[in-house]
Amino acid sequence: MSDPNNTLKPSNQDIDLVLTNARIVSMTSGGEGYQVSEPTHIQIHEGKIVKISGDVPVDTNVYDCKNQLVTPGFIDCHTHLIYAGNRANEFEMRLNGVPYQEIANQGGGILSTVRATREASEEQLIELALPRLDGLIRTGVTTVEVKSGYGLTLNDEVKMLRAAKALEDHRKIRVSTTLLAAHALPPEYAGRADDYIDYVCQEIIPLVAEEQLATSVDVFCESIGFNLAQTEKVFRAAQQHGLTVKGHTEQLSNLGGTELTARYSGLSADHIEFLDEHGVIAMAKSGTVATLLPGAFYFLRETQLPPIELLRKHNVPMAIATDLNPGTSPFADLTMMMNMGCTLFGLTPEETLRGVTCNAAKALGYGESRGQIQSGFDADLAIWDITHPADFSYQQGISRLSARLVNGELNHV
Amino acid sequence: MSDPNNTLKPSNQDIDLVLTNARIVSMTSGGEGYQVSEPTHIQIHEGKIVKISGDVPVDTNVYDCKNQLVTPGFIDCHTHLIYAGNRANEFEMRLNGVPYQEIANQGGGILSTVRATREASEEQLIELALPRLDGLIRTGVTTVEVKSGYGLTLNDEVKMLRAAKALEDHRKIRVSTTLLAAHALPPEYAGRADDYIDYVCQEIIPLVAEEQLATSVDVFCESIGFNLAQTEKVFRAAQQHGLTVKGHTEQLSNLGGTELTARYSGLSADHIEFLDEHGVIAMAKSGTVATLLPGAFYFLRETQLPPIELLRKHNVPMAIATDLNPGTSPFADLTMMMNMGCTLFGLTPEETLRGVTCNAAKALGYGESRGQIQSGFDADLAIWDITHPADFSYQQGISRLSARLVNGELNHV
Ligand SMILES: [Zn+2]
Ligand SMILES: [Zn+2]
Repeated sequence: MSDPNNTLKPSNQDIDLVLTNARIVSMTSGGEGYQVSEPTHIQIHEGKIVKISGDVPVDTNVYDCKNQLVTPGFIDCHTHLIYAGNRANEFEMRLNGVPYQEIANQGGGILSTVRATREASEEQLIELALPRLDGLIRTGVTTVEVKSGYGLTLNDEVKMLRAAKALEDHRKIRVSTTLLAAHALPPEYAGRADDYIDYVCQEIIPLVAEEQLATSVDVFCESIGFNLAQTEKVFRAAQQHGLTVKGHTEQLSNLGGTELTARYSGLSADHIEFLDEHGVIAMAKSGTVATLLPGAFYFLRETQLPPIELLRKHNVPMAIATDLNPGTSPFADLTMMMNMGCTLFGLTPEETLRGVTCNAAKALGYGESRGQIQSGFDADLAIWDITHPADFSYQQGISRLSARLVNGELNHV
Repeated sequence: MSDPNNTLKPSNQDIDLVLTNARIVSMTSGGEGYQVSEPTHIQIHEGKIVKISGDVPVDTNVYDCKNQLVTPGFIDCHTHLIYAGNRANEFEMRLNGVPYQEIANQGGGILSTVRATREASEEQLIELALPRLDGLIRTGVTTVEVKSGYGLTLNDEVKMLRAAKALEDHRKIRVSTTLLAAHALPPEYAGRADDYIDYVCQEIIPLVAEEQLATSVDVFCESIGFNLAQTEKVFRAAQQHGLTVKGHTEQLSNLGGTELTARYSGLSADHIEFLDEHGVIAMAKSGTVATLLPGAFYFLRETQLPPIELLRKHNVPMAIATDLNPGTSPFADLTMMMNMGCTLFGLTPEETLRGVTCNAAKALGYGESRGQIQSGFDADLAIWDITHPADFSYQQGISRLSARLVNGELNHV
């Protein structure tokens, strides 16, 4: 067909949707990625960005961004979104001066969440998670990582991962699941941490890998978590089963978990307040992302800051995430975490925006397909009623999201 | 009329609306105010709570709370909600290491807000404020205090106060206005602070009082604000014109502004990080409320904590507010401030809830009519999808407000 009317304008056959008059903040590498573009058009086909700028094809679906800002959809690359129970009572006891040991004796702490999560059905876990997920969505999230780690049995870890994945059936969202069976020692293994690690490596990881319930395996490597040898065992089992690894490391002390994570080509090392230059260099060499979690830092009243200057010096990509969890970071709000990244860690607004887009994508293994606005990338986008990208990190509490796209599908807010 | 059917049930003639199955957190004095009641009914007539519990009158309007929690509507008793301009750029410059003096030289700081606010019309100020107000409303606010202080001329201060009051025409909200002409020295008075104070006392206060544009007068009493003698001049003029007073005091140093505020029977002294026991005792004697502003403390990375233990010891009522403003507290979120009150100041969840209800009412002179659920009080209420009042201060980012009542009128969310 050589209809002359079609020779100058692109055909609409290969375009599902065009976002017109978009002022793009692409978050591609280099300084330009943070610049706001002149109004242009984003052409989308089969869930991918296929062209930016150019003419608008005739007769296509059009969404007029009306010169609003368009960013990559935000990525929350570290959450514990799935859990049951409520630890407000524990929070209140602590503020009323009840000692930690007494709270623990009354069944508080992480094991209270484990107990409640074990008792909950998959459906209950989904229902409880949706309001939290809606909080994240309101702050522009299109991909959320969700960890297991409150089940600590094969069945309960699997239940958590299935509940996490099922969130995609309830909301326009992409969920990336991580097995965190090595989160805490379950009470039935008290005094037998090595036996529990064997169980994780021999029973849980193989099944989770076989059923493709998670793409990554995480370990809480800490004096109050699992030691280096145990962490390495888990990492080795993960790699044998084709899963990538990441770590909760150097949050409370400098154990060497980050270096170990880097040695296993870890996608990210998370928290890392106590990391030294040696560990930062290891991350730089392995391309491991530093995922900073200012919500937990704030909520725990920590004083040891993550080594921001060293991370900058060695060009380690930094991500920012909520760490959303009932014990140490009860915040379903990613832009507030960006504010905390600036206010508490001294990050720049550009760094925090990279932290929830391109670098967060990298922390989940999607560095080449999400978190940037460019041809070939997933059409996961957020459209905002703000004038300058520094605003994401600055004013909080105001609804600024006009619409989201996930996999090219428009989702009005 | 002696209809026998009406002898047992109360008549519906005197009831406009009944909230049924309400689990009340009344915030009345004493420990009971923080307890969650058994499900009961709140009867409302002409904007007032007239009866709690009792039978439900026949044929009345009913809103079924379905056993949700009902609290007094929250009161944000310290905001600078009305302003124009955006200081995200300044925030970004600061985080990129630009020295304060250079930011000031480029026209940053409070005077940039003054400039933009002077240029804006009353209508523009209203339009700019509404998204911020909506943020507060989402966190349960039914009364908001709004200060002037970015106009610093008679006309511009009046414009700000009118804009603040006009918010009541756009949303179901009660606005309490405060004249803060003594917020900063306007550039045209550079080096002539006493002259400016005379202008405030002789021109601005009399007109604002006469036209009933504000009920209270506030002063920024600080080394970088106005000194004690200037503050006292303003307080004296305010009292002569029948206006109550309050102060921004002891935020950055211990000048004695709080004691002065107490001496003038001030409704509240706000910030007070540097207050000593002497000043706390003065507040206790005058019944002045301590309004704590953790958002500014957080955003400015302050380290000097307000004297919480002394305030408790001397039974000074504590309020919590957002201090919503573009320079030092860009947070349109009152429950996040409650979380900061707990996390940063060590307040209990009960103290923070009193801080946004009964004590915030007292800080605005409404201690006998708002901020508590009891007969005779204004029917300003919030209905919440949460189980325990500690939750307000704990988890953030999740929408939990089901409905609000302002002056007895129901406002679904
Ligand atoms: Zn975590
Ligand atoms: Zn203020």
